[in-house]
Amino acid sequence: MNVICPIPIRDYPNVTLAHGGGGFLMRSLIEKMIAPAFDSGEEFLQHDSAVLPQPKGRIAFTTDSFVVRPLFFPGGDIGSIAINGTVNDLAMSGARPLYLSCGFILEEGLPMETLWRIVQSMKAAAEAAGVKIVTGDTKVVDKGKGDGIFINTSGIGVIEHDLVIHPKSVQPGDAILVNGDIGRHGIAIMAVREGLSFETTIESDCAPLVATVQELLSAKIEIHCMRDCTRGGLASSLAEISATANRHIEIEEFVLPVREDVRGACEMLGFDPMYVANEGRFIAFVPQAHVAAALEILRRGAGGASTSIIGHVTEKTQPRATLKTRLGSTRVIDLLSGEQLPRIC
Amino acid sequence: MNVICPIPIRDYPNVTLAHGGGGFLMRSLIEKMIAPAFDSGEEFLQHDSAVLPQPKGRIAFTTDSFVVRPLFFPGGDIGSIAINGTVNDLAMSGARPLYLSCGFILEEGLPMETLWRIVQSMKAAAEAAGVKIVTGDTKVVDKGKGDGIFINTSGIGVIEHDLVIHPKSVQPGDAILVNGDIGRHGIAIMAVREGLSFETTIESDCAPLVATVQELLSAKIEIHCMRDCTRGGLASSLAEISATANRHIEIEEFVLPVREDVRGACEMLGFDPMYVANEGRFIAFVPQAHVAAALEILRRGAGGASTSIIGHVTEKTQPRATLKTRLGSTRVIDLLSGEQLPRIC
Repeated sequence: MNVICPIPIRDYPNVTLAHGGGGFLMRSLIEKMIAPAFDSGEEFLQHDSAVLPQPKGRIAFTTDSFVVRPLFFPGGDIGSIAINGTVNDLAMSGARPLYLSCGFILEEGLPMETLWRIVQSMKAAAEAAGVKIVTGDTKVVDKGKGDGIFINTSGIGVIEHDLVIHPKSVQPGDAILVNGDIGRHGIAIMAVREGLSFETTIESDCAPLVATVQELLSAKIEIHCMRDCTRGGLASSLAEISATANRHIEIEEFVLPVREDVRGACEMLGFDPMYVANEGRFIAFVPQAHVAAALEILRRGAGGASTSIIGHVTEKTQPRATLKTRLGSTRVIDLLSGEQLPRIC
Repeated sequence: MNVICPIPIRDYPNVTLAHGGGGFLMRSLIEKMIAPAFDSGEEFLQHDSAVLPQPKGRIAFTTDSFVVRPLFFPGGDIGSIAINGTVNDLAMSGARPLYLSCGFILEEGLPMETLWRIVQSMKAAAEAAGVKIVTGDTKVVDKGKGDGIFINTSGIGVIEHDLVIHPKSVQPGDAILVNGDIGRHGIAIMAVREGLSFETTIESDCAPLVATVQELLSAKIEIHCMRDCTRGGLASSLAEISATANRHIEIEEFVLPVREDVRGACEMLGFDPMYVANEGRFIAFVPQAHVAAALEILRRGAGGASTSIIGHVTEKTQPRATLKTRLGSTRVIDLLSGEQLPRIC
C-alpha cells in the first residue's frame, strides 16, 4: 500500500469542483491517484472506453451504486463494499468476474485524504477478488449536493459452464445453504451510526465470494440458484426467489446461524436478523446429492464453520417462503415495505 | 410513450428512502416503472446480473455518471445525456454499443413524476441509439444529501473490425474532421441556469453518434482516432490526443464551425467556444485519401452541413495542439485547469 497520498495535500487538501471539470486538475487526480492504484496501466487514461479481448463464453453484466454511511466502519468501507458488492453479483450468476468500471461522484470539500484511503481500499479489494478496474469516471458536485462520495461500480464476468443458475432452475427437494452467520454488516453499520458499543466490536462480513463460487463450479456442484443477502437481508432473498421460481421454500428458524452478539444487538434495536443486510453472505440452492460436497467448500470460505443448511424447497404449490419458528408455528417470510436501515450499502 | 406515470402519484408523490431499501416499495418501483420502460422483459428484475450471449469480437467497456443541472434543458435532459454520453464513448472506440446498465441515486423527495419523465427519456434515447438497458440499481439518499437524481450508465459494445482506433494510431498528414458546430450544449445549459434568453433558443446538440460511426466503419474509412468533445470541449479533446499520440496538431480558427448565436453568447459570457462542452460532436482523424468519403457521411449525421475539416496532424515534433488564429498568430491549445461550467453532464 502506498503510504502517502499522491495529490499534494498542501495544494489541494479537499476536492474542488475543478477536479471534476475535465481539465488539468481532473487529469492529474486520475493520473496521480486513481490510475496507479487501479494498476491498469496507461490505458486507463487514454481513451473513452477500455478495449478488452473477446470473452470466452456468455457474459454477465451488473451495476451497483454505493451510498453507505459512514464511509468507514468495522470490517470495511465504501471502497471495499463497492468492489465486493459488484463482484459478488457477478459470482451469484455463476460468472467469473473479469472487469470493473468505477464512477465516482464526489462532493466538493471531500478531504483528498479520504478519497485516497477509499481508492487504496478499492485497489486491495479488487486484487483480493481477482478483478481489474479498467475504466472510470469522476464527477464533482457542489458542497451540500452530495454526501462526501458515492461510488458506482459495474462489472463484466464470463460464464464458463453450462449451468443455468437462476431462480427458475430451483427444484423441489433442493437444500438451501447459507455460507455463514447472518446480520453482521447491518449491525456493524448501525452500531457506528448510533454510537452503540458492545462487548466486542461487531465487524461487517463484507467479503468477496468469488473464490468460493469458483470452487463450487470446479467441483461440478449442480448449483440451481445463488443470491447474496444484501439489502433486505436473507429474508428478502428468500421471498424474491420463491416468487420468481414459483416454488415453496421452507426455512427452519432454529438452525439460522446468528452470532450471539448480533442476536443481542438485534433484540435491543428491534430488528429481525433475517432482514438485516449482509455483504459476504449468500444462499445456494443445490440438489440433495450435492449438499455434502457443497457444505465442505462453503466451510472453507468467508463464513467458515457457521455455514448451515437452513431449509429446503418443498413440493407445496404456494409460491412463498415460510419460516418454521422455534415455537413450532409457521409464518410467511415477506418483503419488508422499505428497509430497516437506510444506506447500508 | 407511456402517458401516465405507473406509480400512483396519490400514494407516492415523491421518492422516499424506502424506495431504495430493497423491499416491496423498491421492487414495485422497478417492476412498474423502470423495467417496463427499459423493455428488457422479466429478466431485468430476476437476478443479480444480466446474462448475455458471447460477443462476437473484442469488447469495449465504459462508464459515466451524470450530475447535470438543470435536469431538463432545451434539446435534452439528464436521461437522454445519460444514454447518449455512454453510447458515444463506446462509438468513439469504434465499438457497436450493445448493452447498458443504469444506476440511479435518487434524493428523497424527488417528485415521482420527474423520475418517470427521465425514465421515459432514457427509453426513447436507448431505442434511438439501438442499445438495450439490461441491468440496473436504485439507491435513495436522504433529503439534502443528493441533488434530485444522479445517473450512472455503463456500457458494453462489440468491436467488429480490425482497426486500432486510438490516439496512438494518429499519423502526420491526418485530417481532423468535426461533425458539426461546437459549443451548443454548454451554452444551452448555461442559458437555463442563468436565466439568459437569446433571440432564438439555443438547444443542446445532445445526440447519439452510433449510426454515423457505423457508417464510417461500413464504408471502410480508415479511422485513426475519434473522440467526443464533451467536458472541456473541442480544445481538451485536441490537447489530450496530441499528448497521448505524441504528435503536433494544427487547427485553423477561421474554419471552426460555431453558430452565430453561440458565438454571441460566448462573447457575452467570456467563454471560448472551443472549451464549451458538446454532447453530440466528435472529432475524427482520417488519412487524406479518406477525407472526402468521411465528410460525405458526417454531413448526413447529427451536425449536418456544419461538418468541417478543422486542421491536421503535422510533421512537427512538439506533442501539442496549436491554433492558427484569425489574425495569423499561433497559440497553444491547453487543458484548462478546471472547467468553465461545472455540472454540464
